Amino acid sequence: MPIHKKIRAYFSPEKKLLASLRNILGFYPTNIGLYKLALRHSSAAKQIKKGVKDSNERLEFLGDSVIGTVVADYLFKKFPYKDEGFLTKMRSKMVSRAKHNQIAVKLGLNTMIQANNDRFGSKPSSINGDAYEALIGAIYLDKGYKFAQKFILNRIINVHIDMEEIEFVETDFKSKFIEWAQKEKKDYDYETVVDGTHSPDKQFVLNLVVDGEVVGHAQHISKKRAEQMVSEQACSKLEI
Amino acid sequence: MPIHKKIRAYFSPEKKLLASLRNILGFYPTNIGLYKLALRHSSAAKQIKKGVKDSNERLEFLGDSVIGTVVADYLFKKFPYKDEGFLTKMRSKMVSRAKHNQIAVKLGLNTMIQANNDRFGSKPSSINGDAYEALIGAIYLDKGYKFAQKFILNRIINVHIDMEEIEFVETDFKSKFIEWAQKEKKDYDYETVVDGTHSPDKQFVLNLVVDGEVVGHAQHISKKRAEQMVSEQACSKLEI
Repeated sequence: MPIHKKIRAYFSPEKKLLASLRNILGFYPTNIGLYKLALRHSSAAKQIKKGVKDSNERLEFLGDSVIGTVVADYLFKKFPYKDEGFLTKMRSKMVSRAKHNQIAVKLGLNTMIQANNDRFGSKPSSINGDAYEALIGAIYLDKGYKFAQKFILNRIINVHIDMEEIEFVETDFKSKFIEWAQKEKKDYDYETVVDGTHSPDKQFVLNLVVDGEVVGHAQHISKKRAEQMVSEQACSKLEI
Repeated sequence: MPIHKKIRAYFSPEKKLLASLRNILGFYPTNIGLYKLALRHSSAAKQIKKGVKDSNERLEFLGDSVIGTVVADYLFKKFPYKDEGFLTKMRSKMVSRAKHNQIAVKLGLNTMIQANNDRFGSKPSSINGDAYEALIGAIYLDKGYKFAQKFILNRIINVHIDMEEIEFVETDFKSKFIEWAQKEKKDYDYETVVDGTHSPDKQFVLNLVVDGEVVGHAQHISKKRAEQMVSEQACSKLEI
């Protein structure tokens, strides 16, 4: 880093933020405003124009897509003899909401996020994953695709993602199904046939409907479990 | 293009393919094998290893993601004051299956695809959209992200996508479907499976039946909305 930039960084009111970002990123940001925006949850944002706030949601939209592409490229090259079904499944595990929340905490982003805590009973952990995605959006805009790609490969995938675990640990069928449906642009609906919340036996009955056809039907006292069951049936029936 | 490359291109057995690609892309491919692969549908592919064929499906997985990122970046910059909900909706219209099929035909890819026609009653038009996505995957691997981005912006979005239409035309799927059905002289019926008028949850369940086959199934509290939903499913399923 040239000396004049160092001096500017040293005297900047954003000194602490810059130092933290330098630690996380391995480089100094050029446009610090982008990174500040990436760390601002909508609960702490101001309205800047009708319908738009200066929160990280737009950057999250962009960053999420950049991560998807970088991971697609990584998997394409790492597994030259695997079909696109395998690649899709691996990617959906690598970029899951849960994984992004974990990564954000490992990077230390959770301590840097600007959010209005009064709005939450307890802060939802998705705030962390959202900030991670927005951070990637900021890097992409600030430094370009190649730079963002290097960051994701060297500082995320190689360090924070256990590829063995990703490859061999059993799947979340709901994510697997949804990833497939989105890729194939299918219309799907987890249709609640019976909502057990207030019924005496508390049983949920669900249908999973794809393009008008019921491809899964299950009953369980846990709605989440029922969702997994119908998703697993769908995966088997549709050979996902 | 350097003279030795021109000469090689001229004498190459792939002369015709190279010339067509040059026309479509605006540049000569470096790794022609990637583009050949992008144009090979799985019906015409050989098995190269257990579970994997040398078809365009892996490239399609990659290209689909690259297109999503390029379009996200484009929309992010074009609409600085729109929220991520708007951006998401716009992108989904720009990268729809129908749009990709159209683009492929406009580029002339449909005449270049290697497919085994014996396998189809009539060739599904999604083959075209898949080849377009795979082509973008090939460009990305051959020339890098920036190059693929330029191609998508200059040769696709600026030329083949009407942004006014994307932004302002709210797609009325019911009209679109009925117009098609009348033109094609198809028998159709918006069949009310459950009339929610007098039921406690007020839900309507509809089937859209075309020539005896259910091509759409939806449930909604608004009958009009349910009609739109089944029509949209039909348009997607029948590739209208």
